[in-house]
Amino acid sequence: MLLRLTLEYDGTGFHGWAAQPGLRTVEGTVRAALEEVFPGAMALAVAGRTDAGVHALGQVASVEVGTRGPALERAASALNRVLPDDVSVLDAHQASPTFHARHSARARTYRYRIHRRASASPFEARRSLWWPRPLDLGALSECARMLVGEHDFRAFTVTQTLHGVFTRRILAADWRADGELLEFEIAANSFLRHMVRALVGTMLDEGPERLGTLLRGRPRSEAGRTAPPWGLYLVRVEYPDTI
Amino acid sequence: MLLRLTLEYDGTGFHGWAAQPGLRTVEGTVRAALEEVFPGAMALAVAGRTDAGVHALGQVASVEVGTRGPALERAASALNRVLPDDVSVLDAHQASPTFHARHSARARTYRYRIHRRASASPFEARRSLWWPRPLDLGALSECARMLVGEHDFRAFTVTQTLHGVFTRRILAADWRADGELLEFEIAANSFLRHMVRALVGTMLDEGPERLGTLLRGRPRSEAGRTAPPWGLYLVRVEYPDTI
Repeated sequence: MLLRLTLEYDGTGFHGWAAQPGLRTVEGTVRAALEEVFPGAMALAVAGRTDAGVHALGQVASVEVGTRGPALERAASALNRVLPDDVSVLDAHQASPTFHARHSARARTYRYRIHRRASASPFEARRSLWWPRPLDLGALSECARMLVGEHDFRAFTVTQTLHGVFTRRILAADWRADGELLEFEIAANSFLRHMVRALVGTMLDEGPERLGTLLRGRPRSEAGRTAPPWGLYLVRVEYPDTI
Repeated sequence: MLLRLTLEYDGTGFHGWAAQPGLRTVEGTVRAALEEVFPGAMALAVAGRTDAGVHALGQVASVEVGTRGPALERAASALNRVLPDDVSVLDAHQASPTFHARHSARARTYRYRIHRRASASPFEARRSLWWPRPLDLGALSECARMLVGEHDFRAFTVTQTLHGVFTRRILAADWRADGELLEFEIAANSFLRHMVRALVGTMLDEGPERLGTLLRGRPRSEAGRTAPPWGLYLVRVEYPDTI
């Protein structure tokens, strides 16, 4: 049976999603829990391979489990009993045999949180970017509008890259202010490595005019800094209804 | 010069406010920062001596500082530069010479946060009480209304106590639901040790009828459990305008 899992995690204590020898990773932690609850679980796939320090509110994973293990309706609570506090299974249900958490995904939404206050908040440490300086919300919103559509994002990814195609289609992008919090949300079919963080860093450092040039495929060195990972959240992953 | 400080802290990493030899406490941490920034600082007082694991959003402290140290308008940022991530000075200003953070306080407001969801949230771990079971919001609200006014709270404090008077006047108390969060807020001139946590534990365990009996001065053993410290926040402290 193929299981579809929705996961929430605080990325602070993990070296990202992808398993690495000797390091604590979300994949390694989830895999260990799966092996304990569903002996023989295999073919774990994930929608977004988040980097070290990046959080998830609605990560999606798929995994093949055999007949050993709890009933489907108890799968989430059984996994949560063995998972540590910083990862939680929000939902577990049966997926169609053709479902694949990564390949079937149609859109991914990320959020970047900025905390605007003179003094940093203990409760926002490692959960948002602290920003005590002024920001031009009008310019940021104009940047967000420019992002929507198809662009060449090679200025917004790592220079040493396995990506062959740098064009991505942004489905939605906007900035929302809510008290001391400022949140950037962006949806696309897929993202390049570090893309959201490089876009956020560039929007904070530069204006819309510069962004317009950069979206036509410029080298990485011409764009702004990469915003730190602890402000970034994978919010949700969308799949076609037919799967 | 007497300084009045407003402090925010995440209580997770502290053995409470009060300095204890060999233990990491908020008082010890704040005192060390004060001594570094204002050599010779003395007579540190605090409005609420929070227990281990309890948080603060608006704790108030007063401290006597000499002429050495930064200008008043740079005091908060100078202290924040030497304080760790889990304590932050939100405000620092000069108080009148008769001000005392504890003795001058007219009212203290505490909040208790409950997170209601089938699975625990990594982002709410140690910041709220996780409650996956049903709750009767009507009964809780009725309990809150009963609390307002003057009562004998001996059923809601530790049995080994230095308190001599158990009567307290509750100025306001209510439960508010906000999505998955349920928050209890209570204001009083002062509180007995563990009082808010014992009230919350009893409201969750028992109904309004039982609470009514307990508010007439019953032994601790007749009330409910003490709710865990990590859901509790000292929200704000009020002082007379004339100080």
